[in-house]
Amino acid sequence: MTATVTVIGVDGDDLPATALKALADARLVVGGRSVLSRWAAATLGARSDGAARSGGSSVDGSSRGGGPRTIELTVPAELPGAALDALAASVEAGEPAVVLASGDPGYFGVLRALRERSVPTVCWPAVSYLQRIAAMIQRPWDDITVVAMRGRAFRKAVNVCRARPAVGALTAPGAGPAELGAGLVGWRRTLVVVQDVGGPHEELSIVDPAEAAARAWREPTIVLSLADLDRVGPAGWLAGGEPVPPADGWALGQDAFTHREGMGGSPELRALALARLAPRP
Amino acid sequence: MTATVTVIGVDGDDLPATALKALADARLVVGGRSVLSRWAAATLGARSDGAARSGGSSVDGSSRGGGPRTIELTVPAELPGAALDALAASVEAGEPAVVLASGDPGYFGVLRALRERSVPTVCWPAVSYLQRIAAMIQRPWDDITVVAMRGRAFRKAVNVCRARPAVGALTAPGAGPAELGAGLVGWRRTLVVVQDVGGPHEELSIVDPAEAAARAWREPTIVLSLADLDRVGPAGWLAGGEPVPPADGWALGQDAFTHREGMGGSPELRALALARLAPRP
Repeated sequence: MTATVTVIGVDGDDLPATALKALADARLVVGGRSVLSRWAAATLGARSDGAARSGGSSVDGSSRGGGPRTIELTVPAELPGAALDALAASVEAGEPAVVLASGDPGYFGVLRALRERSVPTVCWPAVSYLQRIAAMIQRPWDDITVVAMRGRAFRKAVNVCRARPAVGALTAPGAGPAELGAGLVGWRRTLVVVQDVGGPHEELSIVDPAEAAARAWREPTIVLSLADLDRVGPAGWLAGGEPVPPADGWALGQDAFTHREGMGGSPELRALALARLAPRP
Repeated sequence: MTATVTVIGVDGDDLPATALKALADARLVVGGRSVLSRWAAATLGARSDGAARSGGSSVDGSSRGGGPRTIELTVPAELPGAALDALAASVEAGEPAVVLASGDPGYFGVLRALRERSVPTVCWPAVSYLQRIAAMIQRPWDDITVVAMRGRAFRKAVNVCRARPAVGALTAPGAGPAELGAGLVGWRRTLVVVQDVGGPHEELSIVDPAEAAARAWREPTIVLSLADLDRVGPAGWLAGGEPVPPADGWALGQDAFTHREGMGGSPELRALALARLAPRP
């Protein structure tokens, strides 16, 4: 039987027995510091070499004490090239490997990189950070638009938080609650923040953008940006709400413009300009 | 302390200890037949009265054998008015209640109806059917558009499956894999179906629309409609893919039309017609 990479979502509860079995059989375990220390080191006696950490991951090349090799990820939701190389090499050598992911590995998580690399996987999903924060405030999340703020998407994600009433923002280093809050100062938004998600200092805070910008938050974090904390969107049929054209057309009617009468052009002209400009987040 | 309704997501694994405690304390337990029989009846000795079932739920008014009252839902993701009434009355009487939900109660689930009724809740999320089917085929799902096919949304949901390359379809009685398949006959789509999700006969099938239409499927089901089974959308930043206008404008360029040259009108005219028509799923 071919060796595989078992991708195990960790959501703070116990792991399924089959996942634990995969972990016990693994010769290589990859994950963020907290999940590694809880599941790999504590359970199996694996040892990671923190001193070797560099370039997004630390690789402990030796297998000391009989435990599996471990690679510690500095950004838990991202698999850097070195970690992908090691996982692919492990599978090619017939040695099963495990990736421990916080939250759901299939939702803006590590599963995508493994699939793109054509590494054979088995996936155990778990409750995502987004499901966790929504449940903490007793809010359904099917009407929530979800954005990942990592990398160059940060600016676009902030614009979506400005444009839409309920947005779930997946944070990343340098793109956290403080940076999002700074981008939303002056906008009528309430930010629901959970810091140290799944950790011993997990805490829910409800703040305005300015306060979010001023505080230091303990990673990992997850944020909901809400126009109204107490309001839930109507029951819908399309996840993320309805980003489709309104039923009455794509350009606002003439009576939607109260200032500078006659300066807004006709709805036809504005529709044409919008079509050509193609405004995007 | 005020009594609450504890909404517990069930995803086939064990329940968290706190959820089990809520279940042990409950005086009223509401849920679909399978979760009730596993968690309420088996664990607590509760009895439901199947003979009294009518109008979407069965209510066992008496509390025989010391167990809690139970209400069996015929459609697990929907709380009919009678069940909502009973839950609200239970909380008002100071008696804690539990709703057992299959999958994630916050994602097109029972949490929304409770919130709309202003019933105080505590929510334990779980892995949704969608996360489950995506993990079964080792596919990330952040680029998947998700539609709920219940009620009048069925026609719109089918149109989204025709328009977009990867759609997760949450089924409902009368709007299942067979009905979706019938709506997609003639379209180049592969349907991934899991039947009896979370049950003893859970099974993954990969079929074309005609075969999906011809088969009988055991509920509950979940479906992925994919233009290409092996292709995964590019890593994105917006959940459900990017339903925003393309960067080059809202109307296709003139060279996108090869037939009846000159008959398609100018891009400007077409953009204007689209803006006025406001086509929607």
